[in-house]
Amino acid sequence: MKKLSHLDARGHARMVNVDSKIPVLRRAVAAGELRCAPDTLRLLRTGKTPKGDVLAAARIAGIQAAKQTSALIPLCHPLPLESIQVELAPGRDRIRIQAEVRVHARTGVEMEALTAVSVAALTLYDMLKGVDRGMSIRDIRLLRKEKF
Amino acid sequence: MKKLSHLDARGHARMVNVDSKIPVLRRAVAAGELRCAPDTLRLLRTGKTPKGDVLAAARIAGIQAAKQTSALIPLCHPLPLESIQVELAPGRDRIRIQAEVRVHARTGVEMEALTAVSVAALTLYDMLKGVDRGMSIRDIRLLRKEKF
Amino acid sequence: MKKLSHLDARGHARMVNVDSKIPVLRRAVAAGELRCAPDTLRLLRTGKTPKGDVLAAARIAGIQAAKQTSALIPLCHPLPLESIQVELAPGRDRIRIQAEVRVHARTGVEMEALTAVSVAALTLYDMLKGVDRGMSIRDIRLLRKEKF
Amino acid sequence: MKKLSHLDARGHARMVNVDSKIPVLRRAVAAGELRCAPDTLRLLRTGKTPKGDVLAAARIAGIQAAKQTSALIPLCHPLPLESIQVELAPGRDRIRIQAEVRVHARTGVEMEALTAVSVAALTLYDMLKGVDRGMSIRDIRLLRKEKF
Amino acid sequence: MKKLSHLDARGHARMVNVDSKIPVLRRAVAAGELRCAPDTLRLLRTGKTPKGDVLAAARIAGIQAAKQTSALIPLCHPLPLESIQVELAPGRDRIRIQAEVRVHARTGVEMEALTAVSVAALTLYDMLKGVDRGMSIRDIRLLRKEKF
Amino acid sequence: MKKLSHLDARGHARMVNVDSKIPVLRRAVAAGELRCAPDTLRLLRTGKTPKGDVLAAARIAGIQAAKQTSALIPLCHPLPLESIQVELAPGRDRIRIQAEVRVHARTGVEMEALTAVSVAALTLYDMLKGVDRGMSIRDIRLLRKEKF
Repeated sequence: MKKLSHLDARGHARMVNVDSKIPVLRRAVAAGELRCAPDTLRLLRTGKTPKGDVLAAARIAGIQAAKQTSALIPLCHPLPLESIQVELAPGRDRIRIQAEVRVHARTGVEMEALTAVSVAALTLYDMLKGVDRGMSIRDIRLLRKEKF
Repeated sequence: MKKLSHLDARGHARMVNVDSKIPVLRRAVAAGELRCAPDTLRLLRTGKTPKGDVLAAARIAGIQAAKQTSALIPLCHPLPLESIQVELAPGRDRIRIQAEVRVHARTGVEMEALTAVSVAALTLYDMLKGVDRGMSIRDIRLLRKEKF
Repeated sequence: MKKLSHLDARGHARMVNVDSKIPVLRRAVAAGELRCAPDTLRLLRTGKTPKGDVLAAARIAGIQAAKQTSALIPLCHPLPLESIQVELAPGRDRIRIQAEVRVHARTGVEMEALTAVSVAALTLYDMLKGVDRGMSIRDIRLLRKEKF
Repeated sequence: MKKLSHLDARGHARMVNVDSKIPVLRRAVAAGELRCAPDTLRLLRTGKTPKGDVLAAARIAGIQAAKQTSALIPLCHPLPLESIQVELAPGRDRIRIQAEVRVHARTGVEMEALTAVSVAALTLYDMLKGVDRGMSIRDIRLLRKEKF
Repeated sequence: MKKLSHLDARGHARMVNVDSKIPVLRRAVAAGELRCAPDTLRLLRTGKTPKGDVLAAARIAGIQAAKQTSALIPLCHPLPLESIQVELAPGRDRIRIQAEVRVHARTGVEMEALTAVSVAALTLYDMLKGVDRGMSIRDIRLLRKEKF
Repeated sequence: MKKLSHLDARGHARMVNVDSKIPVLRRAVAAGELRCAPDTLRLLRTGKTPKGDVLAAARIAGIQAAKQTSALIPLCHPLPLESIQVELAPGRDRIRIQAEVRVHARTGVEMEALTAVSVAALTLYDMLKGVDRGMSIRDIRLLRKEKF
């Protein structure tokens, strides 16, 4: 029967012991999106407010958040991440967000990739909320998780 | 014409000046959900792994994240939050998450409520990912924002 | 009947709502001690290793920790502290630690004072552990808590 | 003659150079206790306030604090911890706390285990202080420290 | 005779007590510069690597650092900052950096403005160091400090 | 032609992928100075305010900042630093600051050494600003960077 590795036999939270695992190269890719009004994205593309700092701020916030994952998610292991990329693709009524994280470690980095996506989305929301009150963050999910 | 308050006239990011606003009581409520397999939630309800620490960990991570909002979201103002509540409602194929934040301040707390929901969802994801590889975080959005 | 204010009616953790309290000047004083071998303290007083940086490091770590209290203790309110003092008094077989914290706020600062004492004690322990393997941290407690 | 490794020849604080040590598996176990009134613990065991979130919050705060040790204790090395467990055992007039930390590293993890115990104790104190004004944190000490 | 307010009568560090000061609007402006080779700045202006994210990253890092000032500088008071602006002006052989911070508080914000400038400069250095090994950070200083 | 490794082909910020580099021992040394009035330094050397905690606070803040480098500088890799030393040399009209950092890692530690120098300088500035309004932080630069 399946069980939750983050709980011990009595149901108490613990940071899982990975000390007997071998460090190998691991990679995770996560995605998500900020849904917003077409007008909001039009504002980002044209006019006096160049999109530069909006997307740059979200990329940078996502990268910094990946590094803070173990401080945010109680049972995550702290890992010396070796690569973080956050990509943003504005469309007609949404901005797609994708993050990739790599590390040589005893445990995977899916939470780091998911955290990068979540905080990039929150940062976009924060910067656009003055002009769009109906946005939502959607479909944050893991796309790929690999060991090499 | 609408413009993005987080950018100056040249499109450069800035933390908006709120020094001429009057501090008043503000409240924001945000929601979202973690979608997962019914089997995952059944595991949480029954059997040897009591759900206690899973939901408690997510509540606590959400509360702590609300307090870190201004460190995570680059242009958010640091605020001495006066109340944070995170509620989790497990259903058949999802766990609904709601967060309420209150403060007397010169600016609102919607980002704090949204951050609490996002990190509570990520924490649930982390604790359940060992038994469910197809989860997603959905519909993170603002429900209410008020000044008193 | 007494109840725990940090839990709601269902026993769920929350950061207590203090938005209806009036901000007043509050002060808390906490104390504790690091028990160690007389030889360890003799080393601190005499010889080639001047005590300067040992005690200074502990004072500074205690002050910095007081400011991080709400990040460490999940249900503590973040507060813009107005005064922090950490005092260390080496004796024959112990170093006494006392911390005082002040703030105008809607809630008290006893956890900030207790956290300052705890982290100052841990820092002393860390700096002395190379020469003394039998130390312990004792009697961390609140001495005074006042509103003005 | 003994000397303090955290100070250089002039008594100045430094983070000790461990670059010539070999990384090996290291483990530390620390313990401590929160002393409180029997009534306080009775409240935790029975009645309307289920103990769930009180103990869960302390376990999680202890785990998270272990990961923040190098940010709290000035001369501690940052380490990618591989296992953290915090155990709480409520008795008649005290809650016993024990923490175990593991890592492959060039230096030990006793400060991480002691920090986990201290912050778990502070979190219990915070959650119970509304009903018990005479608590104290006692006997925080190292139980075991091993290299494999 | 002049004395250092951050030390008590025995020379011990303390966070100065400001609890008897009246909160008023305060503003500080600091400046500094990153000196680099003209070729480095030419690379930033032209060619395939648009300067967008380099300057945006530095602005955002400066803003975020201002909010972390009290965690970085041991005796600084934590303050709920109300405005932070970081401006970068690339010239022929340097990038000039200026930061302005505002808050209603019991103490000033010059350290916040100086910290924003310092971390913006470090971020520029980090992004340009691959192509320029002779850069330096210079003349970080306070330009203005006011109470209203 | 030279290019900035921290930007991808479209000029977007990323944390550079170092996963194919071999971890080796790396060392960096950086320096800088706080320029101040001779009277300020005389105050530090003589009289009732012993310099102990001023210099100790700056050393400790520099050490702690080196450990926070990857949280401050957006594209820096988090690294488990193995040695940090900060040295302060007060002269006639300046305090010289030097920092050395060591680690076995896939990438270098010059930003960690530069960050230690910057934050030590800011801490000195903070402690002396009450008696000297004309100070400046100067010539923060890399002295050496080596792989072994």
